[in-house]
Parts: sequence; C-alpha cells; structure tokens
Amino acid sequence: MAAQTILFDFTLDSAKTADEKQRQEVAKILRNELEHVFPQLELAYSMESPENGYFSVLHENKATIITCRIFQHGLLTVNVEYFLPAGKEPIMSFDGLVHGKSLENALAVKLKAIRGQKLPALRRGDVPRYFPSSDERIIEYDIDKLVYEVRSPFQKIQILHSKTLGNMLLLDELQNIAESDLIYTETLMGRGIENYEGKEICILGGGDGALLYELLKENPKHVVMLEIDELVMEACNKYLNSICGDVLEKRRSDQYEIVVGDCVEYLKKFIGEGRKFDYVFGDLTDIPITGAPVGVDWDFIRTIFEHSFKVLKPDGKFLTHGNGTSCTESLELFEEQLSLLKPKVKFTTSKAFVPSFMEEWLFYQVSFA
Amino acid sequence: MAAQTILFDFTLDSAKTADEKQRQEVAKILRNELEHVFPQLELAYSMESPENGYFSVLHENKATIITCRIFQHGLLTVNVEYFLPAGKEPIMSFDGLVHGKSLENALAVKLKAIRGQKLPALRRGDVPRYFPSSDERIIEYDIDKLVYEVRSPFQKIQILHSKTLGNMLLLDELQNIAESDLIYTETLMGRGIENYEGKEICILGGGDGALLYELLKENPKHVVMLEIDELVMEACNKYLNSICGDVLEKRRSDQYEIVVGDCVEYLKKFIGEGRKFDYVFGDLTDIPITGAPVGVDWDFIRTIFEHSFKVLKPDGKFLTHGNGTSCTESLELFEEQLSLLKPKVKFTTSKAFVPSFMEEWLFYQVSFA
Repeated sequence: MAAQTILFDFTLDSAKTADEKQRQEVAKILRNELEHVFPQLELAYSMESPENGYFSVLHENKATIITCRIFQHGLLTVNVEYFLPAGKEPIMSFDGLVHGKSLENALAVKLKAIRGQKLPALRRGDVPRYFPSSDERIIEYDIDKLVYEVRSPFQKIQILHSKTLGNMLLLDELQNIAESDLIYTETLMGRGIENYEGKEICILGGGDGALLYELLKENPKHVVMLEIDELVMEACNKYLNSICGDVLEKRRSDQYEIVVGDCVEYLKKFIGEGRKFDYVFGDLTDIPITGAPVGVDWDFIRTIFEHSFKVLKPDGKFLTHGNGTSCTESLELFEEQLSLLKPKVKFTTSKAFVPSFMEEWLFYQVSFA
Repeated sequence: MAAQTILFDFTLDSAKTADEKQRQEVAKILRNELEHVFPQLELAYSMESPENGYFSVLHENKATIITCRIFQHGLLTVNVEYFLPAGKEPIMSFDGLVHGKSLENALAVKLKAIRGQKLPALRRGDVPRYFPSSDERIIEYDIDKLVYEVRSPFQKIQILHSKTLGNMLLLDELQNIAESDLIYTETLMGRGIENYEGKEICILGGGDGALLYELLKENPKHVVMLEIDELVMEACNKYLNSICGDVLEKRRSDQYEIVVGDCVEYLKKFIGEGRKFDYVFGDLTDIPITGAPVGVDWDFIRTIFEHSFKVLKPDGKFLTHGNGTSCTESLELFEEQLSLLKPKVKFTTSKAFVPSFMEEWLFYQVSFA
C-alpha cells in the first residue's frame, strides 16, 4: 500500500508573478496544460494573498489531487498525489527519466519558465526508505522489507533490508550500521595500524556487536563492552549475524564481557577501582549536526571524554567516530570539545566512505598530548 | 529563494479510516496536534469521497499551507509547505533528525499510528539537487551552484557544482560524470587489464573527454572520437578540465582526432572504407531502466552494436557501460541484445561504485565468440 507524491518546481520571471492578476494568468496556463494529462481536472479551491501569493487545489475524481502554489517571488510549486494500489503502474510513466519528454518539459515551455524540475516520485506509507545524510540531504534506500521494529526504553530500533546493503540497523530513524559496512568498523579500529594483541579494551556502546567481533580477531587480552540497550543487542544478534558473529549470543568468554548498563556509571566504577585500558572506544550516539556546543548531546559527549581519559593508560588511545566529512561545522564543535579537555589531548583523523551512510565519514584517534 | 516542503506519512489501523465519520475523527486529532505547532491554524477547505477518502487544506496566515489526505486503506499523508527566504531558519528546526523528538512522534502517539515517518525537508526552486538513481530512487546531492546550463539541439546540458564531488555533468537531468569519477573511466577502459599501447581505438560519444584523456596516457597508435554534441564538449572543456585535460580544447593531434558528427554515419563510412579498430568504446546514452526491448533506445543500441562489430578486428573488443547493478531487468535486456548479434559474441563484465552515481555500475567487455 502506498500513495505517490510527485513534485514539480518552476522558476519564473518574478515580474510574471508579482500581482494577483499575473498569478491568475500563470494558474490558467498551468491548468490548461495539466488538463492534457488529467482530462477530468476540476478546480476545487483557490486562495490568494498579496504576501503569500496564489494557492489552488485541482483534482480528477477526487483521486488524483494536485496542489499548486505561485509565490510572488517567481516560484511555482506543483504537488501531485494519488493512491497507488500494490502492483499497479504509476499514472505518470512518461516521467521523463528515460525519454527526456515529460509533463515538466511541457509545462516549462508553456510557462516560459527559467527552470523546471521534476523530483523523482516519492512513495508514501510504504516501507521506510527515506533517510537523511549527515548534512540532512534526503537519500532513498532500496529497502524491500521492514525486517524488525521495536521501541525500547531508550530508542526506536529498526532492522530494514536493503537490496544492495543487506540488513541495516536504524536507531530513531538514523542509519547506524549495515551488513555492507565492515569498512566502518575497520576504520574506527584502525585495522592494520593499531595493534590490539594482548591489549585491554573498553567499548562504550557498540550494541551492534561488530566492533567487538572484529577486535576479538586481533587477539586482545580482554574486551569489556558497556551497552545500555538490551533490545539493540537482541535485534543485532538475530538480524546482523554476519557482522557480529556469536558475540551477542554468548555475551562473555575468557576474552570478553558484555555488560548491559549505563557506560558512564561503569566508567565511574572503573575510575574508583583504578582500572585502566589500552584502548577506549566511543561507539555511542552521533553528535549534533549543527548548533552551539550546548544541550544534552554535547554535555554527554564531554562527560564521555572526561571519564574515558580517566580510565586510559598514559599511552592509551580513545577511538571514536565523528560525523560526515561534509559536516564541517559540527566537526569543528567536536574538536573544540577535545581542545577543552584537561589534561590536554592530541588527535589524528581517518576517513572512509561508508556504504550504508552513502557518504564519507570521519574518525578520531585521541591520545594524551 | 526556496520553498520548503516537509512530508509526513502515518500508517493507521485501516479500521480507523474505513468510513467518513472515522476519517473526520482522525482529521480532528491531527488538527488539534498541528495547532500546538501552528497556533493560528485555520481550516480552508475539505473534501470527502467513499473511494478516495478525506482531503483537507489547513493554513496559518496563508503562509504555511498544510494539506492532509486520509486514505480509507489506513494511510495518512501530511504535506507542509512554506516559503523560506534566503538566510532564514526553517520553521521546523525540531525536526527530530537530531533529538528524536518531533512533530512526527507527537502525531504518531496521538493518532496511535502503526508507523510514522517524516521525510527530510525538500527544497523547491533552489539549485537542482534531486536526481534519480538508476532504479529511480531519489538522491539529493550537495549542490551549491548551478555553474552552467544550456539547451543544445540534442539535449539539456548542465554543469552543477557538488561540495564533495566537484563539478558534475548532467544531460537531460541525468548524472553523466563528475570530477570525482576517475574510477568510472578506469573501469570502462579496464585500466591495468587492457593494453592500449600502439592500438587503434574508436570512441562513440565520450563528449566529456575523460575517456580520450585517459586513453592517451596509455600511448595508443591512434584514437578517433565521434561526438555529436559540440556544446557538451565546450561545456566540459571549460568546467571539467580536471578530467579531460586539453583534449577537447585541441580537438586533434597526431595521436587522436575528435570528429563532431553522428557516430552511426561515421561507422558506416568506416565500414565502407574497411577501416578496423582494436577497440571500440560505446560511451553513449544510457539504456532504458525498464520495459521491453523496443522503441528508439534499444533500436539505437542494436544499431550501435551491429555497426561497431563490423569495424572491429577479429581479436578486437567493444567496451561499454551498462547500468546500475541493481537494475537487473534492464541489464538482462541489454545482454539479450548482445545474444542476438551475428556473428556471435561473448562478454565479460566488471563493476565499480561510481561516486557521482552513488551506486555500483556494471561495465561490459564484448568480443567475438
């Protein structure tokens, strides 16, 4: 079951949309042209205002509903929406993606538009498929199945199946990791650069199990993983088996232990015990995309930093993910937080294109200065 | 200048949307909740039909216009649209992408929705930024500038600047090549696999100049390039200099020649002259995304195949791009065309993730069986 929404934009000479009379004229041309595609088109409603231009509702048998806005600044938006029963063909198959001839072209010519654009059709109410990049661009994934969905006490957990990326973990509708993303884990851990043999390691978060699974291949002395969300681990153990193996199933061995709880509480406990690690991994929530370094997220990140360095050996390293390399503002804020730490720290970065993020991601390696 | 369109979808128990009275109830809940965000919300228009459910137009001072549809199948769509002046902040900054708290969540709870989704905000009338993948998924690019646009006798030519991909060439609104895409050219030519030293080569199309530029680095005997669109070459020479060097500027040397004209006509000429090549490159239009192997595109592709093999030496190769690896149907149709050729041919394939396509692409190496 899905509705289709098809959006058209036209940039017009603003002199042609400045007053009501002109906008009426544009609306008339638009309607005439739409009638070639929708013969039974009717005008259901229209509204006008000097500040906000023209708006109208057109429809064909109340099934296909078309809303139009003509802004006085020379922008025309046309939204076409209709219900598409499963298995039926979209009504606009001549959408110009293949043959270059389309309603958009016809309208652009008739309206003498400076520019016209038809967005690829959007599917509504189908499986979740639209997710944002780190800089909030819309990206449609080739999702063919909602595998699993549950709301834990901490977050919304979804496992979606992508034809090309395999199963994907989403937390509160944000891409987390997919079966395609070994490169994410290998870049986070600096495989081939860092030597984990015989080392003591602490993972903050990491509920998908992939980092723990890969670290154990490097024969560390011991790894303790602190994950708060039991349900994330159950979901990943079941549906992301190819990236986490059996570590979430077993939960412990002589080489590792998974603790279900608040990592900050356990870090405090470790500090009290004077327990130290060679590596601490920050594999927790993403950092805010924009805005000043205030609010719960930055406080949380600062808290994590401060406690983590208290359990690090003098030559230890704190390894964590940053953000998309295009999010320069939030990366600067992140590095600003690092610069505030006492004792002083220094850092290096590495990056990789993460398939399920569809963008390049930045990773940090932080140590005492 | 841009308008923002923010789309919400909610999947409801269809028993709650089956008749008019129930849909009115859902509409009432929706409106009450929207009023928390839009205090001056007014109902401008509504319409009902047994077959197509409920539709309404709400607005705040005619500036922010919200259209709602409640389909009897249990689908509710909400479209919010308003004008966003340059430099102004979007009205929905609490869009839940960062903090997970959003209008969508509030509505989903109040509506007791099975599922709710808020699509990343869409920008209308701004620079072109939304383009389709080969399987027609919408992908938003980080375009910050429309560098160049012209309509040639053959197609619409655009050069757009992407923050992460550099300048991109678009032909009739389809991604063609970007400064980030050396891998595309290297996979098409099988760099490191094929040996071009002292070979005679014919390029069909290739107007962006990247293939010619890379081939000349491999010291071939001679390359002739047949491109129909003068304006594409002028645009690429000016704006894609980093991938085509000076080959489009010079147009000829003792090692290559660019002919502006219809490649089919020139292929016929070569056939008449008995001219043969070691390699022929098909660097022309994309193949249809779906549909039966009929119509102008497949005819064109068949014609290209037939003529190309008539100018190939017995041990020659025809190298070309296919389609996104997810477009299995059109790839099968493409291979079906190959299987129809006489004399018989055999082929191998290679693939690469092309940055500006944001997907994995398949390439073909065809030779006589």
